[in-house]
Amino acid sequence: MVEHRTELHRLLAEALIAHLGVVVGGHPVVLPVAFAVDLDGPDQDGTLYVHGSVAAGWLRSAADATVCVTVTELDGLVAARSAFHHSMNYRSAVVIGTARIVEDPDERRHALGLTVDHMIPGRDATLREPTRKELAATAVLAVPLHEASMKSRGEGPVDDQEDIDAGVWGGVIPLRRTAGDPIPAEDASGPVPADVVRRAASL
Amino acid sequence: MVEHRTELHRLLAEALIAHLGVVVGGHPVVLPVAFAVDLDGPDQDGTLYVHGSVAAGWLRSAADATVCVTVTELDGLVAARSAFHHSMNYRSAVVIGTARIVEDPDERRHALGLTVDHMIPGRDATLREPTRKELAATAVLAVPLHEASMKSRGEGPVDDQEDIDAGVWGGVIPLRRTAGDPIPAEDASGPVPADVVRRAASL
Repeated sequence: MVEHRTELHRLLAEALIAHLGVVVGGHPVVLPVAFAVDLDGPDQDGTLYVHGSVAAGWLRSAADATVCVTVTELDGLVAARSAFHHSMNYRSAVVIGTARIVEDPDERRHALGLTVDHMIPGRDATLREPTRKELAATAVLAVPLHEASMKSRGEGPVDDQEDIDAGVWGGVIPLRRTAGDPIPAEDASGPVPADVVRRAASL
Repeated sequence: MVEHRTELHRLLAEALIAHLGVVVGGHPVVLPVAFAVDLDGPDQDGTLYVHGSVAAGWLRSAADATVCVTVTELDGLVAARSAFHHSMNYRSAVVIGTARIVEDPDERRHALGLTVDHMIPGRDATLREPTRKELAATAVLAVPLHEASMKSRGEGPVDDQEDIDAGVWGGVIPLRRTAGDPIPAEDASGPVPADVVRRAASL
């Protein structure tokens, strides 16, 4: 279980987006969201934060309801010797819990800063403080990391012996995410900041 | 709308995994799945196929129920001049529909072949036929592509003028998926097949 939590925390640190599942009007809606994690957050076993516009319909459906936040990194395509054994290498965390709307101003500010730093570590400290208007326009949801399951596959094809004996090729196409050089906005001036350079180099 | 469908079809052709949302016992569960698309499939505006083990619990919950299949490609991190305007560049399709369990043997075989070819185009034709046992162990779900919404962001930061005037840097870290050279299984022999080489080069 310790190993499981370590893998979970590593995946959550590496991944950039999550897929949030909410029941809206009786049926599931799954949306891509930015997220952040505070392992020392106020919820059991740590807090996963997502945020959105206060105008977003899914936020109203999520408040105080059970939601599912799934984070997946795809690591490879597994070309087996049969259609049946084709697979993918991946790491995926499924977090299920009651979504709490964060009301406390300090926790909201903290969660939004973590979200910026999750994208680009260190960047939040280089930016001006959010205005009251900006904070009022943003809703923050907290989900406990307590009920989290982790699944992964990270190996070559697992084939039937007769297919191997038949000489069919099997293997893996490894996949990863890479970043290009940062592209300054047309109206940007000055050098690319160190945090952005570091982030691009780390991806 | 034609443009929208073209973008949708392009995203579905490029993406490798989907996130399937199902309501299980009243709450949402979101799982990463392989998928395939048949634009000429039997469902309205085409068919999206996902498959799984017949033993999987979520499959029973999905049958004849409304499900949500979301496909997202992340294209960049948008470093704005304020925390509030930080964003991501992405393309995302949200498909909502009633999941039909595919019973027809020909359609099942067709869907599984499409799924292999979605991973590695051309590979299915190089493999032996699935056995009856393999087909019996695999459930195939079909979701109509009719109710599909597409969202995307693909530009630089959109900032407040005073933050631009303050000289803060803004820009984008572009992201993409890349493939490494195919890694043969330890018990593989012979050259890497042309379809696998082509696929790795295309990613």
